[in-house]
Amino acid sequence: MLSPVVTPFDSALRPDRARFTRHCQWLLEQGVGLAVFGTNSEGNSLSVAEKIALLEALREAGLPPARMMPGTGCCALTDSIELTRHAVGLGCAGVLMLPPFYYKGVSDDGLFRSYAEIIERIADRNLRIYLYHIPPVSQVPISLALIERLLRVYPGTIAGIKDSSGDWSNTQAMLERFQPQGFDVFAGSETFLLATLRGGGAGCITATGNVNPRPIAQLFEQWRDADADARQAALDRVRAAFQAFPMIAALKAAIAHHATDPQWATVRPPLFELSGAQQEALLRSLAGLGFSMPGLA
Amino acid sequence: MLSPVVTPFDSALRPDRARFTRHCQWLLEQGVGLAVFGTNSEGNSLSVAEKIALLEALREAGLPPARMMPGTGCCALTDSIELTRHAVGLGCAGVLMLPPFYYKGVSDDGLFRSYAEIIERIADRNLRIYLYHIPPVSQVPISLALIERLLRVYPGTIAGIKDSSGDWSNTQAMLERFQPQGFDVFAGSETFLLATLRGGGAGCITATGNVNPRPIAQLFEQWRDADADARQAALDRVRAAFQAFPMIAALKAAIAHHATDPQWATVRPPLFELSGAQQEALLRSLAGLGFSMPGLA
Repeated sequence: MLSPVVTPFDSALRPDRARFTRHCQWLLEQGVGLAVFGTNSEGNSLSVAEKIALLEALREAGLPPARMMPGTGCCALTDSIELTRHAVGLGCAGVLMLPPFYYKGVSDDGLFRSYAEIIERIADRNLRIYLYHIPPVSQVPISLALIERLLRVYPGTIAGIKDSSGDWSNTQAMLERFQPQGFDVFAGSETFLLATLRGGGAGCITATGNVNPRPIAQLFEQWRDADADARQAALDRVRAAFQAFPMIAALKAAIAHHATDPQWATVRPPLFELSGAQQEALLRSLAGLGFSMPGLA
Repeated sequence: MLSPVVTPFDSALRPDRARFTRHCQWLLEQGVGLAVFGTNSEGNSLSVAEKIALLEALREAGLPPARMMPGTGCCALTDSIELTRHAVGLGCAGVLMLPPFYYKGVSDDGLFRSYAEIIERIADRNLRIYLYHIPPVSQVPISLALIERLLRVYPGTIAGIKDSSGDWSNTQAMLERFQPQGFDVFAGSETFLLATLRGGGAGCITATGNVNPRPIAQLFEQWRDADADARQAALDRVRAAFQAFPMIAALKAAIAHHATDPQWATVRPPLFELSGAQQEALLRSLAGLGFSMPGLA
């Protein structure tokens, strides 16, 4: 169970290391791992140097790299290599790697070569790559055929996938074909958490883990309990409240409110903060669900 | 008339400064300006540092910045600022700026804020931004309403657009609404060169400028001549020969062949070189059109 950690910005839109570290600590306390620099982290809105500085902040604060899976897939081969090498050097459990996403309609040959170049150049047996399949955003899907080929050539390194396609039949196909080989399938939303675990999968990496971490982690830990379906339904209601708004701005608005720290609401362009009315509607809807963020600093 | 200059790579996939500079020199001799780091340049497959090093190579070789319009729009605000600042510092005529392209379905408010942040932070009266509208690839369109708003707030800085939508009605709308205000409309392909010039536009920025520069520049210079339609038809035939294949690989294959320099064919992942059969078919089809690249080093 991991969350793409939202990235706080200061009033000059610089990544805020202190708020970031505090939020990461809180997530770990709730039982949630740190998939920093994901889609919901505005990871691609940060330069490689900014991402490395944030990783260094976590290291200096003594947070455990074994609980980290930074997003390191960039458009430029050299950027992906630099960032991935840094993450491996820190001892991160793995990296979550988008395919290069500027060109659309690229071939599996081209995507294979992209991952292969990165793996060969990093040449570190501690490298664990989790593929990141998020066609609604990247517009560059990772096909089952590509996974099969990568697993055949780099069995120790290709460690799993985050499936953010929203297409359960795709998740199911990967659970059946690849999970038995030790390839960890993570759903891209807690909406599919119970189904993924029942299908033998590894869990989920989910945006709302930023705001609702403990209940999601609890279902992950106790999914065989009798009340699992009811717990899943409760998670789905919170998720739906956030999904009624642009997700990243909504996550940050909720944190800003519950931490009494308005600066947390800031997003980097091209994203935009919730309007006052949207924010009120979100908080009202969350209050109606009895939502809270206990222990948030 | 400019071309998104293709970027040569050495056998380790590093940008090759010497080949790059030579190709830029040849393009200038043919009457074509340098829109380096465009889509056909694999610009987004290069890190910011690699792009700055290539700009420095052109500067050291004494090429005129007044003929340069580097692509500087990245996903990360800080990357776009760093690269744009460098281009302005070099004295480049302008920059061709993609919107941040990772998130899809972003609002005009968010895109406006993205361009505004860059303009305000660079704060240089020599900054000239040409917007880059290429929805088939970026998947993030630049609407007429956004152009209008940017022009109203930053009239001296927002200098024009490259329209690679392939949708002539969109180009036409921009020619009618914005070109009269001195906002330069460039077609994204020489296929629309004559129509754009007849509509009062500024010309085109086109991939095939890399391989067929002189005939394209000649139509640009003599578009009022009686034989303009016949020249346009001849350009279209060469364009079609390249478009039958993945464009970037095809451009590089043609240069590799005509420069007798196989290394030129290399592309960076996620792209892939033409197969031997594709390369033969391309060269055969070009030979049938009497195609040549005179003066290519």
